[in-house]
Amino acid sequence: MDKTITVALGQRSYDVRVGAGVLSELGRTITELGEVSSVVVISDTTVGQLHGPRVMQLLGSAGLTVGSLSFPAGEASKTLATYGELMDDLFSLSPAIDRQSVIVALGGGVTGDLAGFVAATALRGMRWVQCPTTLLADVDASVGGKTAVDHPTGKNLIGAFYQPKAVLIDVETLTSLPREQLSSGLAECVKHGVIRDAGLLAFISENADDILACGSDTMIELIARNVAIKAAVVSADERESDQRAHLNFGHTIGHAIEVLVGYDAIPHGRAVSLGMVAACRMAVERKLLPAADADPITAVLERLGLPVTCDALGPDDIWRIMQHDKKTRAGKVRMVLPSKVGHVEIYDDITARDVRSSLRALLP
Amino acid sequence: MDKTITVALGQRSYDVRVGAGVLSELGRTITELGEVSSVVVISDTTVGQLHGPRVMQLLGSAGLTVGSLSFPAGEASKTLATYGELMDDLFSLSPAIDRQSVIVALGGGVTGDLAGFVAATALRGMRWVQCPTTLLADVDASVGGKTAVDHPTGKNLIGAFYQPKAVLIDVETLTSLPREQLSSGLAECVKHGVIRDAGLLAFISENADDILACGSDTMIELIARNVAIKAAVVSADERESDQRAHLNFGHTIGHAIEVLVGYDAIPHGRAVSLGMVAACRMAVERKLLPAADADPITAVLERLGLPVTCDALGPDDIWRIMQHDKKTRAGKVRMVLPSKVGHVEIYDDITARDVRSSLRALLP
Repeated sequence: MDKTITVALGQRSYDVRVGAGVLSELGRTITELGEVSSVVVISDTTVGQLHGPRVMQLLGSAGLTVGSLSFPAGEASKTLATYGELMDDLFSLSPAIDRQSVIVALGGGVTGDLAGFVAATALRGMRWVQCPTTLLADVDASVGGKTAVDHPTGKNLIGAFYQPKAVLIDVETLTSLPREQLSSGLAECVKHGVIRDAGLLAFISENADDILACGSDTMIELIARNVAIKAAVVSADERESDQRAHLNFGHTIGHAIEVLVGYDAIPHGRAVSLGMVAACRMAVERKLLPAADADPITAVLERLGLPVTCDALGPDDIWRIMQHDKKTRAGKVRMVLPSKVGHVEIYDDITARDVRSSLRALLP
Repeated sequence: MDKTITVALGQRSYDVRVGAGVLSELGRTITELGEVSSVVVISDTTVGQLHGPRVMQLLGSAGLTVGSLSFPAGEASKTLATYGELMDDLFSLSPAIDRQSVIVALGGGVTGDLAGFVAATALRGMRWVQCPTTLLADVDASVGGKTAVDHPTGKNLIGAFYQPKAVLIDVETLTSLPREQLSSGLAECVKHGVIRDAGLLAFISENADDILACGSDTMIELIARNVAIKAAVVSADERESDQRAHLNFGHTIGHAIEVLVGYDAIPHGRAVSLGMVAACRMAVERKLLPAADADPITAVLERLGLPVTCDALGPDDIWRIMQHDKKTRAGKVRMVLPSKVGHVEIYDDITARDVRSSLRALLP
């Protein structure tokens, strides 16, 4: 029961294919792109060891000339330095790459961001195919063409919007995923439910055990529903530029928590989970959201093993960090708040008092 | 008698304004872009000294918050290293840049390529305004949004297509231009005439003295006609992808000559001039172009002080370099050849014998 979702972006449209074992279709996916002189697979050391040999072998069997590049696993590799090293390696390949070569990004979010930025800028833009191998990358990075590296002054400050030609999501790669990384993806799934689809939230709640066990059919259904939501948001944003900002739900305070305690001290999914609880609380206090509508959101997060409470965070520090977020406009802090499950609005009148009060709600 | 040419690229369309003193309109051009939080002027050390203070002052008078970045003048700065340093400087500016900031590229081709690539990739794409200050940048880099840095294995291998929001060409900046740099731009003007417009070639021929003296009105007319030709080619290429390749006329052999003798040993315009003469000769030998049609092309190049003959070049070396050009497809050497002044076609059946014979024609 494979599923295909089209990301509708005019001439830059592409298909996201979700299924068990779909990586085996990579060769055909690439040959269908048109003239292809060679393929370069980019992955980190961890994923390269896990899936690299099989992917190289099946591309070779498809009659393609294949090269591969790798970089050390981890967010610390998302730098201009690693990007420059990948470019050096890319232009040293033999046979040399040309405009008919295709890049494959095989791995999680860091790989997609980094390899995607290489694809966006090598030879002023090469075709690329994304093969995400983490749930977070499956439901988030696989749609929208955001590529980037970090700069010492902030995350994702250098990059490009550059759409892949195709995305293959093989749920079999998820079985090797550490639980913490699964949680990060699940936090984004809950987010998609809150901003667009109450039914998705119910589906997650009803199938939580099977999701946590990475049951194939359930994961295909879960990922396909999430990809469809993100694809709809990204497509709509081409015309209406505030839609994409809805994806920041839970991320404004979540991001500030990450900065405050340190990115290494809290996994992204846990920070986003806390950010969503705080945002729901703020929506309740502003009388935008009935308290009864906030409860199922908190409940599903708990059900997935994500945190909904945490020890005291310095509210003044959190507020200060929020004021310096790159999404701030003209000094105004903007937040995405739900008015019911499945519907959110953007508010740019957030005050220090709102934040303080919503953080208090996180105390155990 | 200022002139405005629209580069028609759908939502990415923009105007190129050509005139004497149009730099003084930079402030208004930027404020008309919409919400602008700050402006960052990027230039090399030479142009920064010549025009920087005036530009900063006039942006300040327009009520804009202005910062500036500079890098050492010269092609040697077109590297990922300089790009990384500019990014460091950009993200260290105070007040900090944000998505409402605008970049101004003030300078020649290297500045446009480098600052354009910074604009294309900082915060995943910032708005930018191009203010070229050399004739080559005026008639070539000002249209088409090509941005890039060099890689040790080749020129312009890392970059992006990223259109500016506006281009201001102030012919008064040309009066400080060294003669050699003027020649490089003039070679491109002749190229535009050969590929699209016999009348332009006649105009250049009739006004050669005034052009070489940088007479304001003549330069405005010359630049506007060239920008219009390049804009038409770039717009058409959005639909028909071989059009842009016509701009390579004279550049295939010209580029090989540059690689053979060294980029520092021959100015770009002189190499392109020789490349055009060789290509015309090849077209004559293939009976595509009447010999009588080739003569006026050679004559106008001579009239502008560009070389039409040179000492023996190793034809086997030239051929080998041509085979490794990044525009080569599936090992086939492609060249753009004229069938009359104003009309060219692409040929992908070029042989070593063709090249040898056309190079012989360059001997004094």
